[in-house]
Amino acid sequence: MMKVIEYPEKKEWDTLCKRPQIELDSLENSVKEIISQVKTRGDSALIEFAQRFDKASISTLEVTKDEIDEAVQSVDKELKKALLVAASNIKKFHSAQQRPLLEVETMPGVYCWRKGVAIERVGIYIPGGSAPLFSTLLMLAIPATLAGCKEIVVCTPPSPNGKINAAILYTAHQLGISKIYKVGGAQAIAALSIGTKSIAKVNKIFGPGNQYVTKAKQLVNQQGTAIDMPAGPSEVAVIADELADASFVAADLLAQAEHGSDSQVMLVTLSKQLIPKVQQELSIQLEKLPRKEIARKAFENSCILLFDSENKMIDFVNEYAPEHLIINTANCDQLSDKIINAGSVFLGAYTPESAGDYASGTNHTLPTNGQAKACSGISLDSFLKFITYQKITKNGLNTLGPVVELMAQAEELMGHKESVTIRLSKATNK
Amino acid sequence: MMKVIEYPEKKEWDTLCKRPQIELDSLENSVKEIISQVKTRGDSALIEFAQRFDKASISTLEVTKDEIDEAVQSVDKELKKALLVAASNIKKFHSAQQRPLLEVETMPGVYCWRKGVAIERVGIYIPGGSAPLFSTLLMLAIPATLAGCKEIVVCTPPSPNGKINAAILYTAHQLGISKIYKVGGAQAIAALSIGTKSIAKVNKIFGPGNQYVTKAKQLVNQQGTAIDMPAGPSEVAVIADELADASFVAADLLAQAEHGSDSQVMLVTLSKQLIPKVQQELSIQLEKLPRKEIARKAFENSCILLFDSENKMIDFVNEYAPEHLIINTANCDQLSDKIINAGSVFLGAYTPESAGDYASGTNHTLPTNGQAKACSGISLDSFLKFITYQKITKNGLNTLGPVVELMAQAEELMGHKESVTIRLSKATNK
Repeated sequence: MMKVIEYPEKKEWDTLCKRPQIELDSLENSVKEIISQVKTRGDSALIEFAQRFDKASISTLEVTKDEIDEAVQSVDKELKKALLVAASNIKKFHSAQQRPLLEVETMPGVYCWRKGVAIERVGIYIPGGSAPLFSTLLMLAIPATLAGCKEIVVCTPPSPNGKINAAILYTAHQLGISKIYKVGGAQAIAALSIGTKSIAKVNKIFGPGNQYVTKAKQLVNQQGTAIDMPAGPSEVAVIADELADASFVAADLLAQAEHGSDSQVMLVTLSKQLIPKVQQELSIQLEKLPRKEIARKAFENSCILLFDSENKMIDFVNEYAPEHLIINTANCDQLSDKIINAGSVFLGAYTPESAGDYASGTNHTLPTNGQAKACSGISLDSFLKFITYQKITKNGLNTLGPVVELMAQAEELMGHKESVTIRLSKATNK
Repeated sequence: MMKVIEYPEKKEWDTLCKRPQIELDSLENSVKEIISQVKTRGDSALIEFAQRFDKASISTLEVTKDEIDEAVQSVDKELKKALLVAASNIKKFHSAQQRPLLEVETMPGVYCWRKGVAIERVGIYIPGGSAPLFSTLLMLAIPATLAGCKEIVVCTPPSPNGKINAAILYTAHQLGISKIYKVGGAQAIAALSIGTKSIAKVNKIFGPGNQYVTKAKQLVNQQGTAIDMPAGPSEVAVIADELADASFVAADLLAQAEHGSDSQVMLVTLSKQLIPKVQQELSIQLEKLPRKEIARKAFENSCILLFDSENKMIDFVNEYAPEHLIINTANCDQLSDKIINAGSVFLGAYTPESAGDYASGTNHTLPTNGQAKACSGISLDSFLKFITYQKITKNGLNTLGPVVELMAQAEELMGHKESVTIRLSKATNK
C-alpha cells in the first residue's frame, strides 16, 4: 500500500522530499475575483458567497448571543471537561513563553531594550468542511488572549443550515471571544484583510485552510496584511526502530493520512524487519477507519524508507524537515538532539502526535512543506511584535557619537553624521 | 518645503499614512526573467548581469582571500576602531536575546519544551549603489553568528572596477565570514534561493535593496525560501514639543530624507511655535547636505502635522506605525508607554536615530510601510526557528489520553483517536 524504498541514494532525496502539489491554474484568478468582490460589495458579497459556496442562506454574518447560548447548552459535558483540560495545558505552555523586558546598557549612558507588544487586531480563520476544528481555535485564540490582543475576530464557514458547529462556539465562548462571523474560504481572508461593515479589518490573519484560503492569505500578505504562515497539507515523519510496536507506528501514520488526500506520511527506519509488521498493521487498521478512502489516497503520496546508517537517516529527516516528527525508538533522546529541522517532535512510544494536536500544551499550527528549515510554529511571539527602544544620555552620546560620525561618513551619509555632530556641539557647550 | 497640515481630521489619516509607491508595471516581469535566467544558466548569467547592471567585468564571483587581505590593509584605522565599538554593542544587545530552553510539565508525565535552533544556511544581501552599507552587514551577520548559523553567504554588487567596497570586506572578515560573492540585485536573490555552482542555496534571505531586490524576495518567498521582511523605503516620525531644539529635529528629519527620494519623514507636534523654527533650520541645514537633491525630493512625500491633543497625536502615530520613531519631548518616557506600533523608538534629545542606525546596539533592519503593526525588526530570533518537543510517560498518557480521545472523536478524526486508544490498551495491559 505504501511503497517501500530501500537505501535511497542522496541524489534521490530531493524527489523524495517533494510534497504533493495540486495547484489549479485557475486558482489565483478565482481568488482575486473573490477578493475584489469583497472589496467593492462588502457584506453583501459575503452573504452571497455563503449561499454559493456553503449552501447556507444567512441574513446576518455575526453569530448572535442566542446562538452562542444554545451551543453552550448543547455541547456534551464530557467534551466540555476535555476542552478545559486541553485549554489549561495550552495556557500553561504558552504562558511560559512570556519574555521579560530586556534592558541592556551597551555602553555607559547608552540604554537599549526590547519589549513585546500585542498585535492590536488579529483574525482567526477556522475551516469548516469535513471536520469542525475547534482544536485550532484553542491553539490560536489562547496565545492571542495571553498576548493581550485587543480585538480577536473569528471567521468560520456556516453549515448548510446556517449554523456554526456548537463545539467551536463553545470554545470561543470559553475563551472570551464574542466576535464570530459566518464567513468561510477566500472571502473570509479578504474580509479580515480589507474590513467590511460587519467585520473589522485586522493586522494579522491566522489559521489553516484549503488552497483557496492559502492563496488568499498569500495575496493579502502581498498587500500588507501579515499572515501566520503559508500552511500546506499536513505531514508526519515517523522514525521507528526494531523495538517499536508496529501497531503504534501504523496508527500514527493513519492518524496523519486521514487528514486529507494530499497529506503525506513517511516511515523512516533502520530496521528491515519492522516494515512488513507495520504494513500488516496498516492493512488491518485502515479498514476500521471511517475516513479510509482519504487515508488510502494519502498513502499514494507517501513511502517507507529504509536506511543503512543512522547518520544518513537523520540527514534525510533534516532535509525533509517534517511538520511533525515522531521518534519512536529506544534512543529517541539522542536522535532528537541531532534533529535541526522539524516543526514539532514527539519522543518515545507513548507520545502520539495526536496528543500535541489536541491537548498536551504545544501548538499544532506548524510549518509544512519543508518550511521548518527556516520557520517556527505558532507561539505567543506570533501575536506580539517586539519594539526596540533606546535612550542615550548626554554623556553617552559624547562617547558613542564619534563612532557614529565616523561610520556615517564612511557610508557617505553626511546627514546621519550631522544629526550627531549638531548634538555633540551643544552637549559640550552647555 | 515640507507641507504643514494643522489639526487633520481622522478621516484624512488614512491618506496621511500612505507611503510613496513607485512600482513599475514592468518590474515583476523583469524580475521573473532574471530569476529564470539564473535558474537555467547559473553562474554565467550572474557574470553577464554584473556586466549589464553593474558595468563590472568579472570572471569569478567569489571574493578572493587576496582581495580581502588588501581591503583589511586599506581601511582607515579610526574607522576600524569605530566598527569594533559598534560590533561590540550590537553583540551585547543581541546576545542578551538568547532564551533559555523552555521546559514545562503541563500535566504529570506530560513534558513539553521549546528550543531555538539555528537556521542552517542564511544569505545576506548588502546593496551597493550610492552608499556602501557595511553597517547592514554588522546588523545581519552578528545575530547570524550568535545564533550559530552554519553557513553565512554574503552577496553584494561589484563596483564598475570589479571590486567590493573595502569597509564591507573588512567587516565581513572581522565577523569571520569568508563567503562573499560579487552579485547584486534580483539576480543575487535568485542565486541565494536557487543555488548555483558557486553560490550555495540558502534557507532564508536577509537584507534590504531596491525595488528589484524586494520584488525578487517576494517571488522566491512564494516558492518557499524564507525572507526577513519585505523592506520598503525608509521612514521616520519625530514627535517634538516646544522645548525641543529645532536644530536637532531638523537634523533628524534630514538624516532620514537623505536615504532616498522615496523616503518619508514626518514631524508630529502639539507646538505651533516649533514649526517655523524647524522649517528655518531645515532650509539652513539642507543646503550643506551633499545629498540635498535626494532629501528635497523626499520632503515632497513628507509633512509636518500639528495636533491639538496628545491622545490624537499618539493615535495618529500608532496608525502610521513608523519604522523609526524619535520622541524628543520632556515627557518622552510617558509617551513611549502609549506607543503600540513602531519598529524602533528613540527617546529624548540626545538619542538621534543614527545612533541606532550604526552603533548603539539595536538592530537597524526594521519593518516599514506600516508593517510595524504586526512585525518586528530583525533580532536573534530571526536566525533561529523554535522547535517544540514533547515526551509523555505511560502514566502521563493514561491521564491525558482520554481527553485526546474525546476531542478527536468530536472532530470526527477517528484515526487520531485510535493512535491513543491503541496505546492506552497496551499501557494498561502491561
